[in-house]
Amino acid sequence: MPTLYNRIQGRNLERLAALSDGIFAVAMTLLVLDLHIPSAAQIHSESGLLAALAALGPQWITYAMSFLTLGIFWAGQQTQLNHIAEGARDLTWIHLGFLFAITLLPFSTRLLAEFIVYRAALGVYWLNILAPGAMLYWSWAYATRTHLIKADTPEEVRASICKRILIAQSLYAAGAVLCFIATWVSIAAIVLVQLNYALAPRLRLRKRR
Amino acid sequence: MPTLYNRIQGRNLERLAALSDGIFAVAMTLLVLDLHIPSAAQIHSESGLLAALAALGPQWITYAMSFLTLGIFWAGQQTQLNHIAEGARDLTWIHLGFLFAITLLPFSTRLLAEFIVYRAALGVYWLNILAPGAMLYWSWAYATRTHLIKADTPEEVRASICKRILIAQSLYAAGAVLCFIATWVSIAAIVLVQLNYALAPRLRLRKRR
Amino acid sequence: MPTLYNRIQGRNLERLAALSDGIFAVAMTLLVLDLHIPSAAQIHSESGLLAALAALGPQWITYAMSFLTLGIFWAGQQTQLNHIAEGARDLTWIHLGFLFAITLLPFSTRLLAEFIVYRAALGVYWLNILAPGAMLYWSWAYATRTHLIKADTPEEVRASICKRILIAQSLYAAGAVLCFIATWVSIAAIVLVQLNYALAPRLRLRKRR
Amino acid sequence: MPTLYNRIQGRNLERLAALSDGIFAVAMTLLVLDLHIPSAAQIHSESGLLAALAALGPQWITYAMSFLTLGIFWAGQQTQLNHIAEGARDLTWIHLGFLFAITLLPFSTRLLAEFIVYRAALGVYWLNILAPGAMLYWSWAYATRTHLIKADTPEEVRASICKRILIAQSLYAAGAVLCFIATWVSIAAIVLVQLNYALAPRLRLRKRR
Repeated sequence: MPTLYNRIQGRNLERLAALSDGIFAVAMTLLVLDLHIPSAAQIHSESGLLAALAALGPQWITYAMSFLTLGIFWAGQQTQLNHIAEGARDLTWIHLGFLFAITLLPFSTRLLAEFIVYRAALGVYWLNILAPGAMLYWSWAYATRTHLIKADTPEEVRASICKRILIAQSLYAAGAVLCFIATWVSIAAIVLVQLNYALAPRLRLRKRR
Repeated sequence: MPTLYNRIQGRNLERLAALSDGIFAVAMTLLVLDLHIPSAAQIHSESGLLAALAALGPQWITYAMSFLTLGIFWAGQQTQLNHIAEGARDLTWIHLGFLFAITLLPFSTRLLAEFIVYRAALGVYWLNILAPGAMLYWSWAYATRTHLIKADTPEEVRASICKRILIAQSLYAAGAVLCFIATWVSIAAIVLVQLNYALAPRLRLRKRR
Repeated sequence: MPTLYNRIQGRNLERLAALSDGIFAVAMTLLVLDLHIPSAAQIHSESGLLAALAALGPQWITYAMSFLTLGIFWAGQQTQLNHIAEGARDLTWIHLGFLFAITLLPFSTRLLAEFIVYRAALGVYWLNILAPGAMLYWSWAYATRTHLIKADTPEEVRASICKRILIAQSLYAAGAVLCFIATWVSIAAIVLVQLNYALAPRLRLRKRR
Repeated sequence: MPTLYNRIQGRNLERLAALSDGIFAVAMTLLVLDLHIPSAAQIHSESGLLAALAALGPQWITYAMSFLTLGIFWAGQQTQLNHIAEGARDLTWIHLGFLFAITLLPFSTRLLAEFIVYRAALGVYWLNILAPGAMLYWSWAYATRTHLIKADTPEEVRASICKRILIAQSLYAAGAVLCFIATWVSIAAIVLVQLNYALAPRLRLRKRR
């Protein structure tokens, strides 16, 4: 009987997409709650306010990096779901695991902003990039194995989704390892990888057209 | 005249689904606001930061348990709504009651994380699992009685949705009673029941295929 | 030229519905952030914790009342939009005004919870019930005048939507006036009116079937 | 291979619309978290509470202005997306950039409310109006160049969307420059421009019908 229930559960991909959009929207907007404005008691001039804003630098970098991370995972999940024909209970729970990792990102971001020179904070942040990537890989492998992928999806698209995750995660891991030089080298490398995924391919595409 | 108004109110199941997805998304993401990062003033080394993160243990357990709870109820409500043909004013208000209980979960979670050895906190948390379960049971009973269920829903599916709620709630209640031994026994039992619903049936299904 | 732009703006009722569901979902969930858990430093026993929870009474009443308020307005707006055939720029801005009032409700709720014996706090809360009601009335009047209502909407439905708002707001206003006896009389009256709209008609309907 | 992946990524305009609605909904509702209620310790009478609420004046003005800003950009983005036939990876990232600027608005609002007489705070706020406007302009230019706009969109509509952004941003910039007289002159000018876009065209339209 539980197996009957499990067969009817979680079939609705639209609901999964709506829950995901909601979680990404809240996570993206919550990040900004950690951008604290300067304390009014310590500001006495225009230049003082500008200096106080500039001092928020490390917070801004982690904030922008986290928004990029969220954007990349949102686009990646969307691409997968666009190619999946129907939902299934297990797929839903894999994506709930993915979303669990996403909800933790505001925590990792806050931790990294506060302890930006600590390798432990960077390690936690990297784990928070690794985990959703692993869940998305699992999701695609599961959908492939259980024939949930839309029939009209070409073989090279199926392969490219897996390769994309593996290459991106390898680059992130390489970036994370650089923290043994210094955490800021690591952060710079991760941001560059992210910007490559968000911006650079567009430039390349434009040249071809 | 109010009865005319009531007949035209709350017919839109998509709006109900969208409101529910929004509330679950916010509740799932708000939980993480209670994961406080260690205070920078007390951390002086990498190992100190790792120790401080490990000390957040109880918070992590209640956080993960609450995410599981939310995921289970989200999937359960979705399954019901997938089988309901059209909305009705009363059904909408039953689900608003369900969502009311869901919005309280971040409160119960915070309470349990702060007072993890107190039976009173565990009791409140358990009531917060019981209440949405009861509302979902009422919702299905109401939809059955007023013929709102899709005509193509087989009889065994109708029965399995009720049974599922009763069995799950019995297990949660049994888990809650264990708090008279110790609250951590109770929490472990509830998490095991939840993991059974999230993970175990998948393993079983996989064997059959 | 601006009038051309205004003719093409805000036509998408689904986007308006999605924004509204998002705002209601966040507002409903944010309310619970104001339910503060007791301070761990002051709790030394199970009964102490239970007593501290009971002392949160006034907060719970305003919380539940605000959830009811939000639910009633969400259902009311949904009913209107279900009967509107197409969007229009002006209608969109009337509903943005409605949503503006909705986003203020967590503020009014906090104010009333903190100053529950003050008539000024109750007055602000009542204004926060009056404003969205007035916007919904304006929305329906506007949609009627500009022929945006679905052609198959019977005349008595059109009338009942206006009447419903007028009667409900008259009852709320009568309840608010009772604050000159005492604010708790006023709150009790408003909650009773709300419960009447959420629960009582269901009982009546059930008798007829 | 990345170019293949990029061709299949971000095609789903509904997901983009849903994410946007979520982010706008959260941003609109989070603004109210900064409306702090008066401290109970300092209020001893009804008139004291009314005076304390009146003293919140500057916070209310920035709050209402930010809600207007969000409403205007939400309506503007919606109008664009209504005329776009299909999604594309690059368009998605342009809109993620737009949404990034939107998530910063609660920060700029808080900054301006706290430092309302500082030109630096007003400058940051103005940049936060300029940035999403620039992204929307870029989005429309990109969609035009890559033929993503619906075929049935008349030429004058295409032109009016660009002109609208340029005129509005010129007026905002002119308003911002007035801060060299005083920041409140600047704020008043920006609010008047916003009210013009939200209210005035409606009055004009009404006369013609």
